[in-house]
Amino acid sequence: MKAYLNRRYRFSASHRLDNPAMSESENRACYGKCNNPHGHGHNYIVELTLAGEIDKDTGMVCDLAELDRFMREQLIGPMHESNLNQQRLLDGEIPTTEALSKNIYEYVKKNFRKADLQRVRVEETAQNAFEFHAPNASHRF
Amino acid sequence: MKAYLNRRYRFSASHRLDNPAMSESENRACYGKCNNPHGHGHNYIVELTLAGEIDKDTGMVCDLAELDRFMREQLIGPMHESNLNQQRLLDGEIPTTEALSKNIYEYVKKNFRKADLQRVRVEETAQNAFEFHAPNASHRF
Amino acid sequence: MKAYLNRRYRFSASHRLDNPAMSESENRACYGKCNNPHGHGHNYIVELTLAGEIDKDTGMVCDLAELDRFMREQLIGPMHESNLNQQRLLDGEIPTTEALSKNIYEYVKKNFRKADLQRVRVEETAQNAFEFHAPNASHRF
Amino acid sequence: MKAYLNRRYRFSASHRLDNPAMSESENRACYGKCNNPHGHGHNYIVELTLAGEIDKDTGMVCDLAELDRFMREQLIGPMHESNLNQQRLLDGEIPTTEALSKNIYEYVKKNFRKADLQRVRVEETAQNAFEFHAPNASHRF
Amino acid sequence: MKAYLNRRYRFSASHRLDNPAMSESENRACYGKCNNPHGHGHNYIVELTLAGEIDKDTGMVCDLAELDRFMREQLIGPMHESNLNQQRLLDGEIPTTEALSKNIYEYVKKNFRKADLQRVRVEETAQNAFEFHAPNASHRF
Amino acid sequence: MKAYLNRRYRFSASHRLDNPAMSESENRACYGKCNNPHGHGHNYIVELTLAGEIDKDTGMVCDLAELDRFMREQLIGPMHESNLNQQRLLDGEIPTTEALSKNIYEYVKKNFRKADLQRVRVEETAQNAFEFHAPNASHRF
Repeated sequence: MKAYLNRRYRFSASHRLDNPAMSESENRACYGKCNNPHGHGHNYIVELTLAGEIDKDTGMVCDLAELDRFMREQLIGPMHESNLNQQRLLDGEIPTTEALSKNIYEYVKKNFRKADLQRVRVEETAQNAFEFHAPNASHRF
Repeated sequence: MKAYLNRRYRFSASHRLDNPAMSESENRACYGKCNNPHGHGHNYIVELTLAGEIDKDTGMVCDLAELDRFMREQLIGPMHESNLNQQRLLDGEIPTTEALSKNIYEYVKKNFRKADLQRVRVEETAQNAFEFHAPNASHRF
Repeated sequence: MKAYLNRRYRFSASHRLDNPAMSESENRACYGKCNNPHGHGHNYIVELTLAGEIDKDTGMVCDLAELDRFMREQLIGPMHESNLNQQRLLDGEIPTTEALSKNIYEYVKKNFRKADLQRVRVEETAQNAFEFHAPNASHRF
Repeated sequence: MKAYLNRRYRFSASHRLDNPAMSESENRACYGKCNNPHGHGHNYIVELTLAGEIDKDTGMVCDLAELDRFMREQLIGPMHESNLNQQRLLDGEIPTTEALSKNIYEYVKKNFRKADLQRVRVEETAQNAFEFHAPNASHRF
Repeated sequence: MKAYLNRRYRFSASHRLDNPAMSESENRACYGKCNNPHGHGHNYIVELTLAGEIDKDTGMVCDLAELDRFMREQLIGPMHESNLNQQRLLDGEIPTTEALSKNIYEYVKKNFRKADLQRVRVEETAQNAFEFHAPNASHRF
Repeated sequence: MKAYLNRRYRFSASHRLDNPAMSESENRACYGKCNNPHGHGHNYIVELTLAGEIDKDTGMVCDLAELDRFMREQLIGPMHESNLNQQRLLDGEIPTTEALSKNIYEYVKKNFRKADLQRVRVEETAQNAFEFHAPNASHRF
């Protein structure tokens, strides 16, 4: 019987949506004002869901302080007050929030091993959020 | 590997809960003050979840502007500042939020084809929300 | 030296904006869809601000349980799940949120005497709020 | 075809994280400041998700007034403005929010029979939430 | 006796804090990561407070549809999904949120005459907000 | 012409309301369940409002990093995950949120000199907030 931990982080960043393989007018048609050359930005919220047994000794799924240190040092710190088009995490992908949620999912899945990542949710605005999770997750949301 | 887009819309409407097949006292026992003949109302929030591949060219699951246009023209616009007992969408069903979420789900599933609707959530108050999704959804929440 | 207590209450109600002294087309021009004959509704939030000395014995400005009882019995209870056009509090005034905040202000000012009402704020939606307070309030917001 | 009802409750409580089977320094290493002997506290939010058919006569999944009465009398009332280390619900378990979500899940599953409990979510802070649900739930979140 | 209308608008934008009259290291010391050459961004919320008599015929302080049209056409539309360093509204000032609130205040005060602007509040993040209002406002907040 | 900076901080703490000068039954009558000997707790939000000229060189009212360092080291850090009855800041006063807002006001007013403190607001729950400010503040809220 597993429990699920949800943890939220915040960062502020800018981005510009532009695909160099498309023409200027195709980019404008596809991305609208998000294609303007000077970019725009958001206050992003990242929510992780991790599954684990409740440890009999501690009563906890995982050590939150350890998770926070990992996230702040490796992901949130570098992205906060940055431009996402410059982020190595995205490695040249167009910095849509879809791509952001996928890349955060893959990075945490590979590098944080103290609990089992199930889902990454990234809120771009109060109206908009994207989620990513593996198709074979034992637990789905 | 699919990503999931969540998009929120708001509208304000009134409703009265009353089943004409039940007696006045049965209606009062069933619905309490929600059965008062003059109705009451809410600020509703509708959240859709749609699944899709992240398009390689655009980095997006689906064109949000297109989804917004569909929702505003066909559902949110007609319901905003209306009385739900008058809505054709509900077609004579008692306008509970359960019925609202089911009918929005069925309408979007049938009429919006650019991404795969997974779930409709309707928040009636800050304490209350109802969700609807097909039993055979490939991804469940 | 005074402290200020802010207390929030919630209720859900419907209303229709219509001035019988105006023609049908004037009403439509003035109120738009809010004039539709079947009404619409909101989840309202009422926030009171009351001033008072911090009592030396209790450390409190006023007994919150007493304020809550007053508000629930005399205002929030009767308005919750009602139609505002029927409310005696508004006494035939057009049930705009401006009128609601003014009438709640006047009712509480006159009838609750355990602390000094400074302001009433009524939130109609997440985008909209109205406030009312006397012009000669010793403390202004 | 089932619909899902989500309902939220709030309570304020204190707790201290301390495992009597561990030494003082082990407890301090494990729980940090949450191990301080005087405790600390939170405004908790409990969200239940229940599944059910939409009743043909009433349009509802379950009678919310009945659910609210059950929750307030048996769980939220006793926990509000209490210390969780004293709660019989937790029966001597360390009052982490993981344990709280598991015990609320088990209690509601066993004792509320008017709809089918799917999930319990407990929010400890705006950054933190825990969820619990049975591994063989017919519907997963 | 006046009532006060509060109205909220949202836009997403990027900015870079950099004073060309200061050296690179002075800019870095003053603005930290907000000085990075690629900028970052936010979801901004603008809240206006306007005072007015409650009109005897309409029950309203001012026509919200008219205020919304003014704000969307002249301020929110041009700023949404833009870079604030490019905005003519700021006219070369460093685009801090302090400067933004002051310039929005001055623009609305001068150009919207249907109600009396009292205050502009700009929220940059959930932790941060700036306000501006004239020192001789008849009503203060 | 001054601008106003609002900055929010969060901490979680427990408290017990009990006046040793009153009898057990008087305490129970006065504080209800908040008088239970094991205490309870909250997620508190502290919002400061500070006034200042917008600096011509930096475009800012005051250096937020400096304010954050002051608040975290001297107030928020010591109170987070603590019991307020043990806090020296309150110096034996009954730890109501009224007393908390007054003492935070007086401490910041005396010890932080880079901008002019106007107001302290402490939110105890989503329904409840207390504010404190000096009667002769040049700007009032």
